[in-house]
Amino acid sequence: MNKFKRNERIGALMKILTDKPNKVFTYNYFTELFNAAKSTISEDIVIVKKLVNKLELGEIKTISGAAGGVKFIPLMTDKQINNFLYSICDKIKEKNRVIPGGFIYMTDILYSPDTVYNIGKIFATKFKDKNIDYVVTVETKGIPIGLETARVLNVPLVIIRSNSKVTEGPTVNINYVSGSTGKIQTMSLSRRAMKEESKVLVVDDFMKAGGTAKGMKDMMKEFKADVVGMGVFITTEKPEDKLVNDYISLLNLKGLDEREENINIEPNLE
Amino acid sequence: MNKFKRNERIGALMKILTDKPNKVFTYNYFTELFNAAKSTISEDIVIVKKLVNKLELGEIKTISGAAGGVKFIPLMTDKQINNFLYSICDKIKEKNRVIPGGFIYMTDILYSPDTVYNIGKIFATKFKDKNIDYVVTVETKGIPIGLETARVLNVPLVIIRSNSKVTEGPTVNINYVSGSTGKIQTMSLSRRAMKEESKVLVVDDFMKAGGTAKGMKDMMKEFKADVVGMGVFITTEKPEDKLVNDYISLLNLKGLDEREENINIEPNLE
Repeated sequence: MNKFKRNERIGALMKILTDKPNKVFTYNYFTELFNAAKSTISEDIVIVKKLVNKLELGEIKTISGAAGGVKFIPLMTDKQINNFLYSICDKIKEKNRVIPGGFIYMTDILYSPDTVYNIGKIFATKFKDKNIDYVVTVETKGIPIGLETARVLNVPLVIIRSNSKVTEGPTVNINYVSGSTGKIQTMSLSRRAMKEESKVLVVDDFMKAGGTAKGMKDMMKEFKADVVGMGVFITTEKPEDKLVNDYISLLNLKGLDEREENINIEPNLE
Repeated sequence: MNKFKRNERIGALMKILTDKPNKVFTYNYFTELFNAAKSTISEDIVIVKKLVNKLELGEIKTISGAAGGVKFIPLMTDKQINNFLYSICDKIKEKNRVIPGGFIYMTDILYSPDTVYNIGKIFATKFKDKNIDYVVTVETKGIPIGLETARVLNVPLVIIRSNSKVTEGPTVNINYVSGSTGKIQTMSLSRRAMKEESKVLVVDDFMKAGGTAKGMKDMMKEFKADVVGMGVFITTEKPEDKLVNDYISLLNLKGLDEREENINIEPNLE
């Protein structure tokens, strides 16, 4: 059986714990993997704990008891969050993003693995004490953000569809009114997508009047779910009066000058 | 400035390198972060390299020259791939997955962050020498697989839409015939989604006759892209004659007995 030196064990522990955030690994798992005594692993974990603090990566939590073990909780500091949000604003303000009709081309940002991973870590930081069972989003542009948030929280992702699909069995369908266009639209979710009475975090990429967000909340009622948080990447400053309250927004889109191609967007700072 | 002990540096290096697969970090980045000499970092990297081999996580590659540095390439061994695929087959064979009409409920698997991360690592392993610029998929169910494949390869994800959207500017739209239903459908991609003459990896969750895959290949022609690989999670055994060749499929769906709720699915082993 392989023997591992201390610095190898520390390296392996860092990789294994940080690669699967919020997953509890038992001490037994590591004693077997490293062919080492439990007391040795405990000493290693102390070193890893300090290192994670020193690097400001989040927190290593040890859980005692029968289901005990150790897990890594990724957290971003306010400074890390603000730096990231400013860098994204700079990117959004680049020329050539304004699309006729007053829209902003955003898909390169919303589909960038690195960017959505950071957004996921921010949402996971902001809702860390909520004991979330599922991350819920609606197709399409919010899916990458939803997936990374779910990955960091170590819970399943649920994607609400805009049409019911034959491949998903019985579905719940609801109609909602888009707050910005006034049009009636449908969303659909498979009956078996979620257990009832779950705690859910709803995330989306963009909110204007909040019609879609309200629709998602209504959908969650049909599953007797408790919406313990809502995280949106960008909200528009107007209308001020949204159809939902109690959401966290990372960026505030204050305005857009189509002729000059100027985009006025700012982070919602801590 | 913080000083780091060797085991702390090894731990930090493992976290930083494995958290951003295929991203090149310069030696300068680490000498500054750790306040250490380049020779010290070089010794650390040798330890990390051996450790990554020992744990069968992939490969640490050092790149010399002006743009030089070090990166982590996640690779799965054949044994790791086969074990994962068998475990997924067991999950698919669980009762209650068969949906009237001969479909299989798969979204819990396709939206599981852990599962799609593994699928991403497998595709990244199989197409590791292809110098891929973009991972391309079509909405909706393939998006999580696409995102994790892109994240592991450290390239952007491109999502082809089923309708053109006002928020994406000028789009290229193509019609394609669904190989299984014979219906004509549309796919749409923003002109600015990709640079021309790129190398792309096309991924999707499911292929029956290959109509959608053929559509994606045709779409790529419109962007003068070179499709250097195609990875599909599940293909059906029939029809044997698909509309595309040159794809890698992870699972082979051999049959489905709707009455008995039996699903016959097997990994395509190495």
